[in-house]
Amino acid sequence: MQKVDKSVLDRIRGVVTACTTDQSEMAPHLEEIRGLFHGDTAMLVFPGSTSEVAEVVRLCAENRLPIVPQGGNTGLVGGGIPHADGGEIIVNLKRMSAVREVDATNQTMTVEAGCVLTDVQAAAQAADRLFPLSLGAEGSCQIGGNISTNAGGTGVLRYGNMRELVLGLEVVLADGGVWDGLRTLRKDNTGYDLKQLFIGAEGTLGIITAAVLKLFPRPHEVRTALAAVTDPSAAVELFERARATLGDLLTACELIPRNAVALVLRHIPGCRDPMAEAHPYYVLIELSAPSTGLGDLLEQLLMAAADSGIVRDAVIAESGEQARKLWRLRDSISEAQRAEGGSIKHDVTLPLSRLTDFLCEASAAVIRAIPGSRVVPFGHLGDGNIHFNVSQPEGADRKAFVAKWANLNRVVHDIAVSMGGSFSAEHGIGRLKREVLAHYRSPLELDLMRRLKSAFDPHNIMNPGKVLPSP
Amino acid sequence: MQKVDKSVLDRIRGVVTACTTDQSEMAPHLEEIRGLFHGDTAMLVFPGSTSEVAEVVRLCAENRLPIVPQGGNTGLVGGGIPHADGGEIIVNLKRMSAVREVDATNQTMTVEAGCVLTDVQAAAQAADRLFPLSLGAEGSCQIGGNISTNAGGTGVLRYGNMRELVLGLEVVLADGGVWDGLRTLRKDNTGYDLKQLFIGAEGTLGIITAAVLKLFPRPHEVRTALAAVTDPSAAVELFERARATLGDLLTACELIPRNAVALVLRHIPGCRDPMAEAHPYYVLIELSAPSTGLGDLLEQLLMAAADSGIVRDAVIAESGEQARKLWRLRDSISEAQRAEGGSIKHDVTLPLSRLTDFLCEASAAVIRAIPGSRVVPFGHLGDGNIHFNVSQPEGADRKAFVAKWANLNRVVHDIAVSMGGSFSAEHGIGRLKREVLAHYRSPLELDLMRRLKSAFDPHNIMNPGKVLPSP
Repeated sequence: MQKVDKSVLDRIRGVVTACTTDQSEMAPHLEEIRGLFHGDTAMLVFPGSTSEVAEVVRLCAENRLPIVPQGGNTGLVGGGIPHADGGEIIVNLKRMSAVREVDATNQTMTVEAGCVLTDVQAAAQAADRLFPLSLGAEGSCQIGGNISTNAGGTGVLRYGNMRELVLGLEVVLADGGVWDGLRTLRKDNTGYDLKQLFIGAEGTLGIITAAVLKLFPRPHEVRTALAAVTDPSAAVELFERARATLGDLLTACELIPRNAVALVLRHIPGCRDPMAEAHPYYVLIELSAPSTGLGDLLEQLLMAAADSGIVRDAVIAESGEQARKLWRLRDSISEAQRAEGGSIKHDVTLPLSRLTDFLCEASAAVIRAIPGSRVVPFGHLGDGNIHFNVSQPEGADRKAFVAKWANLNRVVHDIAVSMGGSFSAEHGIGRLKREVLAHYRSPLELDLMRRLKSAFDPHNIMNPGKVLPSP
Repeated sequence: MQKVDKSVLDRIRGVVTACTTDQSEMAPHLEEIRGLFHGDTAMLVFPGSTSEVAEVVRLCAENRLPIVPQGGNTGLVGGGIPHADGGEIIVNLKRMSAVREVDATNQTMTVEAGCVLTDVQAAAQAADRLFPLSLGAEGSCQIGGNISTNAGGTGVLRYGNMRELVLGLEVVLADGGVWDGLRTLRKDNTGYDLKQLFIGAEGTLGIITAAVLKLFPRPHEVRTALAAVTDPSAAVELFERARATLGDLLTACELIPRNAVALVLRHIPGCRDPMAEAHPYYVLIELSAPSTGLGDLLEQLLMAAADSGIVRDAVIAESGEQARKLWRLRDSISEAQRAEGGSIKHDVTLPLSRLTDFLCEASAAVIRAIPGSRVVPFGHLGDGNIHFNVSQPEGADRKAFVAKWANLNRVVHDIAVSMGGSFSAEHGIGRLKREVLAHYRSPLELDLMRRLKSAFDPHNIMNPGKVLPSP
């Protein structure tokens, strides 16, 4: 383990009493959720206020002690996990979990970085407003992490990524200075929009300590349906029709392949096949509106699509319970894949006009590369964002399969990038895709990113070795 | 006039034949639209391609010759006007006006920076899509300028500022390098989101040469109404109700005071009073949707608001022609104010929850400062963005009144900022508000902005003396 000056740790302990070096307490903070990344740390610090964060960072800056900012530790690319040498401290924001203000008229709320996403959603709902970010880890991920990774999820189609939901930030900079950018305004053209730098920077430019979030009118009616289609191009066509005829009423549109449903039925207790017959693909559609009448619109959409031969069968949820069941099919796919053995994941976006070509070409390439492997492409159809996950061949050796991760990634990413797509839609870069970023981005673009990093973190103490590949 | 090395100008002329040093040709490019800013330039250059822009910038960088990037020259803060010493060249993008691609399925279009906004709108419409940015200067402003100033306008309530409408950029950097960031994706978390730096930077970090824009379903029904209310707090309440009950169907909500209507009726031919009686304030409401049925919703909203005593009278446009007449009342206010004499302008945003307090307090302060002056506060109610414009006292001396510009600004901005508001909502900083920015922003924030500027334009050749105050 790299030596960290004990006197510095003592001085940090003098600022924040909530610190630990106990291995069992630190263990859950040192491992990525899927076990892909492990690390070690000199100390785990839980500051309770912005000024405590600032003082800790100031001490670290003076002593060139690197910091890993950490939220709920639900990221999938190792961005919040320290390196193995133990030469960093973790600054975990969970104690800063206050909702500082909800302004229902201005449709904004000010929250601290450690607020858990479901608590943010609940505080908005208590004021009859909606905070629309929604994703699998919402019960434990923290809003500061959501902002630092520009989180996506199922609401992006209508409400945008996390970036579009942030109006203001408070950030502790790499020298311990505090930038108070907690503005609550929808229009504010007063110089460079500094908050944009920290959103999606994965903690490499500063530590977000609080944020002003946009709220929306709370939908008082939500309707959900599952439509069966024969192939991805029919799914894209259904999405296009839904968007053209329903506009912003369409708040989710998710693609589910039959093999994903089969895995869910096999591994997740209490799920059942939503239709009498099996179909190659399904599209989960959700409409939301402040007032009523969505049921008729949804039925009209699906009837017309059925008349045109796009939709083969459809189920409209008649209750909230039925809607939850339809969503459960979608939300259980990752868990079902885990139960099925090894799974090599890709988080790609494609221009929607190329999505069908991509699925066809990439699926063929995967099967050529690893015969018998099973492509399970699901996710956010409306955003062109597909979790193109590959389950191991039935009965294959899990370890041997997962060892092909990087090679298979290259095959799939090459195809996505050649079609104008992205190799990381919503999960970010962290440690997992640092070299992937270096491979696909031009030297000029990498140089611009490094200039930004140097300008804001000249001593490279903020989450070093994440996002940016070594020069 | 500062000397500019003639041999450098000759070399630029060797790259771009469309150059001029003719004073009469240059004149329209040297004056801000309202005459507030004049400048001089060594040469006016009209590059026809990204590579021509890059080569010109490279020559300028080598020779430390500063550049003013210019679009349609419709800005209101002098950002596109060179300084008086003639030591800069203007790079005007108007020849780069191609629509490179419209992808209706992906709901994106790729356009060059010199494309006029109405041409962008028309290309979207031809593909049955909507590009929602809409503002007074749309017939002559260019999309590159819209992006560089993060333009606002009447569509922000539903569709966001220009920043939220950009998916990708192509930028010529300060050393002449070309960053190709023309991505067409709605999700792409691959390192720092560099495009955010250039959006709203007013040409101080690079020259935007092309962009990928988001498109939306084209509304097939649009309904417009004008509602009379007694005071701003009733206007805010009407907005809150409209947003809560109609959600995203509400696509515009503009505040118009009676004195603005009176000025329009006095000075703009062909306008008439929309209601039998005069009312202190009006709210212009627009609903849009892909399908029909909005008329009923609009009527229900206004009836319910009338029953609650919020709305005193209302007119619903029965035709496109009637809707245009209602919008003309709104859109003619600035012109009517010009005809009425001097007008000192403020482009403020307030948290909506403070808007009523602001209007009350700021109006009183203005009248204390300049007795007899007439406050005409109008604009984008739904965004909290009010053009708080002050017309001179009747019969006063125009010049003497306008000389109080900076003093009156300070009075009004102090009140806005004390309530958490902004002193520049959508017009930006340019030269007009450089010192205002320095006054209201912390040294720490100004330092962050300067670090960004130095990192991307180390020799300060990109639109120097704009946005950032001198250290």
